[in-house]
Amino acid sequence: MSIALESALPHARDHRDDDLQDLFTLLRQPSISAQNIGVQECAALEEALLQDAGFTTRRLTAPGHPVILGEWLEAPGKPTVLFYGHYDVQPPDPLDLWLSDPFTPTVRDGRIYARGVADNKAQHFSHIAAVRHWLRANGSLPCNVKIMLEGEEEVGSPHLDTVVAANKELLAADLVYTSDGPVTDDRYPEIVFGVRGDLYVELFATGANRDLHSGHWGGVAPNPILALARLLTTMIDKQNHVTIEGFYDNVRQPTPGALAAIEKLPFDTAATIAGIGLTEMVPPTERSYAERVMFQPTLSPAGIIGGYTGPGSKTVLPAKASMKIDMRLVPDQTPDEIFAKVRAHVERYGEGITIERSDGGMLPSFTPVEHPLGDVVRAALRAGFGAEPVSVPSAGGSLPDSVWTQTLGLPSFLVPYGAPEQANHSPNESYRVERLWQGIETSIHLLDLLGDASYLEM
Amino acid sequence: MSIALESALPHARDHRDDDLQDLFTLLRQPSISAQNIGVQECAALEEALLQDAGFTTRRLTAPGHPVILGEWLEAPGKPTVLFYGHYDVQPPDPLDLWLSDPFTPTVRDGRIYARGVADNKAQHFSHIAAVRHWLRANGSLPCNVKIMLEGEEEVGSPHLDTVVAANKELLAADLVYTSDGPVTDDRYPEIVFGVRGDLYVELFATGANRDLHSGHWGGVAPNPILALARLLTTMIDKQNHVTIEGFYDNVRQPTPGALAAIEKLPFDTAATIAGIGLTEMVPPTERSYAERVMFQPTLSPAGIIGGYTGPGSKTVLPAKASMKIDMRLVPDQTPDEIFAKVRAHVERYGEGITIERSDGGMLPSFTPVEHPLGDVVRAALRAGFGAEPVSVPSAGGSLPDSVWTQTLGLPSFLVPYGAPEQANHSPNESYRVERLWQGIETSIHLLDLLGDASYLEM
Repeated sequence: MSIALESALPHARDHRDDDLQDLFTLLRQPSISAQNIGVQECAALEEALLQDAGFTTRRLTAPGHPVILGEWLEAPGKPTVLFYGHYDVQPPDPLDLWLSDPFTPTVRDGRIYARGVADNKAQHFSHIAAVRHWLRANGSLPCNVKIMLEGEEEVGSPHLDTVVAANKELLAADLVYTSDGPVTDDRYPEIVFGVRGDLYVELFATGANRDLHSGHWGGVAPNPILALARLLTTMIDKQNHVTIEGFYDNVRQPTPGALAAIEKLPFDTAATIAGIGLTEMVPPTERSYAERVMFQPTLSPAGIIGGYTGPGSKTVLPAKASMKIDMRLVPDQTPDEIFAKVRAHVERYGEGITIERSDGGMLPSFTPVEHPLGDVVRAALRAGFGAEPVSVPSAGGSLPDSVWTQTLGLPSFLVPYGAPEQANHSPNESYRVERLWQGIETSIHLLDLLGDASYLEM
Repeated sequence: MSIALESALPHARDHRDDDLQDLFTLLRQPSISAQNIGVQECAALEEALLQDAGFTTRRLTAPGHPVILGEWLEAPGKPTVLFYGHYDVQPPDPLDLWLSDPFTPTVRDGRIYARGVADNKAQHFSHIAAVRHWLRANGSLPCNVKIMLEGEEEVGSPHLDTVVAANKELLAADLVYTSDGPVTDDRYPEIVFGVRGDLYVELFATGANRDLHSGHWGGVAPNPILALARLLTTMIDKQNHVTIEGFYDNVRQPTPGALAAIEKLPFDTAATIAGIGLTEMVPPTERSYAERVMFQPTLSPAGIIGGYTGPGSKTVLPAKASMKIDMRLVPDQTPDEIFAKVRAHVERYGEGITIERSDGGMLPSFTPVEHPLGDVVRAALRAGFGAEPVSVPSAGGSLPDSVWTQTLGLPSFLVPYGAPEQANHSPNESYRVERLWQGIETSIHLLDLLGDASYLEM
């Protein structure tokens, strides 16, 4: 343990009341991006907090809510960490389900209750507090630190990629470190190394120019529901293999390290499947649940509607029907490439069916579990939480993580400090006070470990 | 032309004003079965009208609105015709689209405007008026006449089969003759000899016990939309042949007479298909449109819903989806038989899918176009409308016609007196005055032709 670390940790432990008060100041400020309530005021509070901690701050030119960059760059030749967080929060509705006011932070039973405390104010605050304690105890940092805070995460980060792409030099770093979301298992700190991408499309099937009497036209005029069903079954075979030409062409196989990490996950597949009321997965069952949701792309209908759907019967041949399809992509698939392949398939096999892309989709993102900076992050978590972290090679879901790995070309680590029960986006969102202290100490350890010169040679 | 006919026809022509006034009395009386408005009052008016024409009347015991039976049975050894009609009407909404009050019959441009005039008051009134004119002119009828009027047709005739089955002796006849609905082509009177039956089912597919995050469960947990699509494609092949085991076992092939009648239909298939915005039917195209909708059973999805169907995207794996399926049956299929076969198919191929029958379904109904009484009806129409009638071997749609052909075991002829543009069930329902006179004379001719002894030997 370095001497500087030996000063920073006690400083943090001796000033917990100050940290709590500063976090509460952030929490008292509503910052609801979807409703544009208090966002500017919260951005100003964040800037003041960063400056008080020792950062210089600037705002990055962005079309939406303020994007703040805090910098402390006085460790030449040392690694640079870029922290990412967001100061906007979800709307607090429904208000009547809150036991205390969502913008009056309240501690009950060791938990802080407030909208946005877990998602994401306490988590990015942990990094700011770590820097402050280290600087107050030692006067300088062992590495360079950048922290970027945006105010549109809860509305889908519509400008994040644009802002990052326009500021590559300012955001240059050795790694991106994001504390957001909860860990999967409360007993273990967790590092997520990647996410799947996604693509969402809608198929529109058309038959006659109006709904028809099924006694006069059923089985004689085209049936759009049948057309969609037929097309869908040409896209996925009975083993749930996607049969669209070229769909798997760019799928990168998991590394041995990733497969080994999956084996070590404290994940009870049988219990999880039982929890959703099932006894088994659908085929192919020779691969584990984790391997499938992390490293296999999927194509899954998310919604369908057509014809008469009310109570009882209506003898109609519908003129149209539509189906939404959700796809999850893995490295090195891209939404553009997959959309072109799906569209070609629809044009070939889907007579009377058109396809539309619901949005741009997300690129998959990938940082190898074998990356040497992964060991740094692991060590920091081990020290801060006092437990061996688990390495999750990929989240099954999708996040705009490719902005770091592809736009900036950096390794990116998602390191949730929160607990599973924190109720993100729901009434009575909360954050365990103990996790606030553990998170601050983890970030302190991270600064220390990054300062170790040996990591420069990776 | 018989002497009696030579008296009856002039009597009808000389008393058209009386007929119009009596019909107007019926039309002024609302008789909305769905809302139970004026139904009893209308039944009483019908009874008075029947008695005035010379019928004896009785009410058949029935659980719903009154079922009236008028009888004139003083022609021993002569055929008996059973006319069927209904005195209830559809609700007149939307009222603001009517150009004159729906229950104030109004003549404009040679048409009577009133709710229920076409469907069905003017049509069954034609039979009553025919009997009245014949009796006033001659004192007796050339055949026996029964007329049954029900008050629940517009709500699906829920008690019709029960009432008929319980009164087989009272309803004994040689044929059933129903004037309802419009002809297909205004230029030709029309006889419909049968209808297809129907069966309507709903399939319910279930996956997990709740909607799931598609990034965590898509492609791994069962997808109910995919399950329905797969099941549906096991039910119908690419040639639209139903592949449910035994589905076609009891299909009776059309008789040569039926096929010949189809050939003579003044039906422009290409124009009809163009009218719904299409250029061709779906396969198999080697049989004509008419043959397919009259003599082929069909299975056609009528509605489907599952998962997210709102605007934009929601990345969900739905827990359930459901699909409604409409089937049309031909002789000698039955709803019970086909339901058992479909259920067996679902149990075999539809994992996680259950089936429910939406209602009892309808039996198909069939009277051969070669039936000798068909010639009697044809001759009456030819005389009454002055044009050669077309014989429609089967309507594509479904009506409870099997109550006559199967429950009573009689030949049944659907003989619409109305015109295509009469706007049944819509605002400004109307009936051409000329068709009222043509219908009355057709019914008069029918009485005359049935009275010809040669028809007794059929």
